[in-house]
Amino acid sequence: MTDSNQISLDAEDEAFGINDRFVDEVLEAVENGDSVALSTMFDAVHPADIAHLLEVIDGRSRKELLSLWKGGLDGEVLSELDENLREEVINSLAPSELVDAVRELDSDDVVNLVEDLGSEQQEAVLDALDASDRVAVEKALAYPEESAGRHMQVELVRAPQHWTVGEAIDFLRSDDNTLPDQFYHLILVDPRMKAVGYVTLGRILSTRRDVPLNDISEDSFRTFNVNQDVEEVANAINHYHMITAPVVDDDDRIVGVITIDDAMAFIEEEAEEDLMRLAGVGEGSLSDKVVDTTRQRFPWLAVNLVTAICASLVISMFESTITELVALAVLMPIVASMGGNAGTQSLTVAVRALATRDLTSSNVWRVIRREALVGLINGAIFAVVMGLIGAVWFGQPMLGVVIAVAMVINLVVAGLAGTMVPVVLEKIGVDPALASGAFVTTVTDVVGFFAFLGLAAAWLL
Amino acid sequence: MTDSNQISLDAEDEAFGINDRFVDEVLEAVENGDSVALSTMFDAVHPADIAHLLEVIDGRSRKELLSLWKGGLDGEVLSELDENLREEVINSLAPSELVDAVRELDSDDVVNLVEDLGSEQQEAVLDALDASDRVAVEKALAYPEESAGRHMQVELVRAPQHWTVGEAIDFLRSDDNTLPDQFYHLILVDPRMKAVGYVTLGRILSTRRDVPLNDISEDSFRTFNVNQDVEEVANAINHYHMITAPVVDDDDRIVGVITIDDAMAFIEEEAEEDLMRLAGVGEGSLSDKVVDTTRQRFPWLAVNLVTAICASLVISMFESTITELVALAVLMPIVASMGGNAGTQSLTVAVRALATRDLTSSNVWRVIRREALVGLINGAIFAVVMGLIGAVWFGQPMLGVVIAVAMVINLVVAGLAGTMVPVVLEKIGVDPALASGAFVTTVTDVVGFFAFLGLAAAWLL
Repeated sequence: MTDSNQISLDAEDEAFGINDRFVDEVLEAVENGDSVALSTMFDAVHPADIAHLLEVIDGRSRKELLSLWKGGLDGEVLSELDENLREEVINSLAPSELVDAVRELDSDDVVNLVEDLGSEQQEAVLDALDASDRVAVEKALAYPEESAGRHMQVELVRAPQHWTVGEAIDFLRSDDNTLPDQFYHLILVDPRMKAVGYVTLGRILSTRRDVPLNDISEDSFRTFNVNQDVEEVANAINHYHMITAPVVDDDDRIVGVITIDDAMAFIEEEAEEDLMRLAGVGEGSLSDKVVDTTRQRFPWLAVNLVTAICASLVISMFESTITELVALAVLMPIVASMGGNAGTQSLTVAVRALATRDLTSSNVWRVIRREALVGLINGAIFAVVMGLIGAVWFGQPMLGVVIAVAMVINLVVAGLAGTMVPVVLEKIGVDPALASGAFVTTVTDVVGFFAFLGLAAAWLL
Repeated sequence: MTDSNQISLDAEDEAFGINDRFVDEVLEAVENGDSVALSTMFDAVHPADIAHLLEVIDGRSRKELLSLWKGGLDGEVLSELDENLREEVINSLAPSELVDAVRELDSDDVVNLVEDLGSEQQEAVLDALDASDRVAVEKALAYPEESAGRHMQVELVRAPQHWTVGEAIDFLRSDDNTLPDQFYHLILVDPRMKAVGYVTLGRILSTRRDVPLNDISEDSFRTFNVNQDVEEVANAINHYHMITAPVVDDDDRIVGVITIDDAMAFIEEEAEEDLMRLAGVGEGSLSDKVVDTTRQRFPWLAVNLVTAICASLVISMFESTITELVALAVLMPIVASMGGNAGTQSLTVAVRALATRDLTSSNVWRVIRREALVGLINGAIFAVVMGLIGAVWFGQPMLGVVIAVAMVINLVVAGLAGTMVPVVLEKIGVDPALASGAFVTTVTDVVGFFAFLGLAAAWLL
């Protein structure tokens, strides 16, 4: 790893994570086959950091490390790992190691771990669980992939609504072994197990024993159905600053919770997905194989090729115009490129606003008008600039006028298309992040070349 | 609002937020000047939803609503509001309303509220606070803008490390009025107020009164310095699944906490910023004024104009070549456009990987090689496709060869530039999300046109 001495990307004041020196030390221990040093080094390291280390080292080192570190890998590391590496790492474990690793995990982490595994591996993990845990995991796997039921944690603490603070404390003290690792609320239930409210542990601890839980429950209480989209639940957790979101079945009985730390991961994932889709990258990550990455990027490039050919067809309509005035060929990419960029600006804002619900039916027409107006103003400014440049560069004032007018037209169109395309895609149920870019670029390319070359043909020749 | 009947963007199964019907009802009440109906309607609505409503309605309705709703606006709504609307709304409040609104907020929310206000408004808010709250807010404002100290909540609960569970419970019960609204841990301190560990409320509640807190404190305990970047702290909270991050001063004394719900907001903001910067949109939001949006988008378009002119200069070097073979003008945008798209794919992945620390010194060379290889493979595929199209379209096999070779060159360059540009920018301390796009597009445009037209000049004429 002499390379690592040349480029250092580590910030000075890291709040978390592993640094290059640690990675180098680990790689050295792997090279020396020193499993004792490795275990010692990993002893005080958080599972999330070990997972991250496995992601940044190359495949060969990863394989050697895992075979040296026999038995050391715990379940937390597996559940922190990038999905595309999980299968590889799980495959490298002996069945008994896998059993040890998953046994300590919460139900939602096990589900998350096994849902993408092949059926043989899945069976091996399920066999490792206690009967009751296994039932919980299998139940969760029966819910749709992106549902709250699939991602909820079944470990939770509920209390009958008629209990007092004292009764709740006695219950919590008596019953240690069934409590989840982390919990921050008691969920109040009626005799039919219907969730009716919740009490924070802070309120319980600061209240006298004889006070009924009902008197200190939180004002606002929301529940979410098992079939609801888990990203919606995560967004609600963020929106309402909740710590735990209770998940209920169709009869309003409490069956699990989505916790804020999982919600945070979903929200980060969602924003990242939007970004990756807008750039046409798909679901990729750096630890994917070259062939996978090539395949992920291919469709977007293929779509772009079709788009570019459409634009070329427009140009070819004006071949004779270009032959007469080759300056047009020099200037035409400028109009198309400015339109493409302005369109990308508008569509990025629109796609995000749709995702965060800032763009709704109540303001969609206002937003479209606004974007067109922004395009008109910026278009006018750049029209003047580029008109002057065009006129001076080629000594033809009328060429300046042509590029100026084409620029205004294309930037207004960019604003309109950049907003309307995502809105229409959302309306017909297509993910706007995924498809807007291709449509908008096609529009701005075609309009850009057509306006510029068409006006040139009409006014200059 | 007849418009809203035409486009409905509401999903069927919303987990949160307000629907179009509610917005319409509110606007109707505003139009009728019906302040009673308005108050009734807002009664059961969460402050985050009211803030959202204020963001989606137009400026005139917002003004009327606020003047009708006199006295109803509470501090939570203000702190949930988009920054660019806050000043407008605060200006619409009478001083006494402002005082009522902010008094109930936690210190970090007040800081967040006042930090962007003009000094006169800031003074008015500060005057509304109790002396001790005012000191806390002023202290926070003295920390750097993006620091943990600026954004921490000073309301927290600490306990001497030698206390037992019983002593902690008695303290919490006795001392109601100084407890924060929400808290999930006790932070253990030594006699010099140095933070030494923490205990979850769940552990306290499930443990006998005579057990020392020290015996049930969490294994892993991290503190963050007041001067640390708050986004780093938020990322650490996410990475390590923490609920509260203790913030300490230079002497390791506990001075505040960053809570997970705030961390969640920071992480969402960070991802959104990356997205907006990559698209060259700046800090915009839909509720900005047209002139502000125009100004935010201008710089990126200006940079793009320079980029596009560079590309045009390359084309102008080959004017005589194009005059001889106008098919070149028709086909040249395809090569540049494919390169631009492939470059955007690589740079988006690189920028995100830098932000999430998946791209580090340990794997940077491997990633660069990988991207070049992906470019080579996809380049080769599209070279064959486009080579055939070019040869058939214009009946010149050699033209197909030229476009094919130019395509491979440009896609490899796109992979290299798409990774190396962000890495170098990060290394020299420039935000790669902000500046990578312009550089990479310049490279792919210039290389694309130069390779295609240059090869054509050499091989065809």
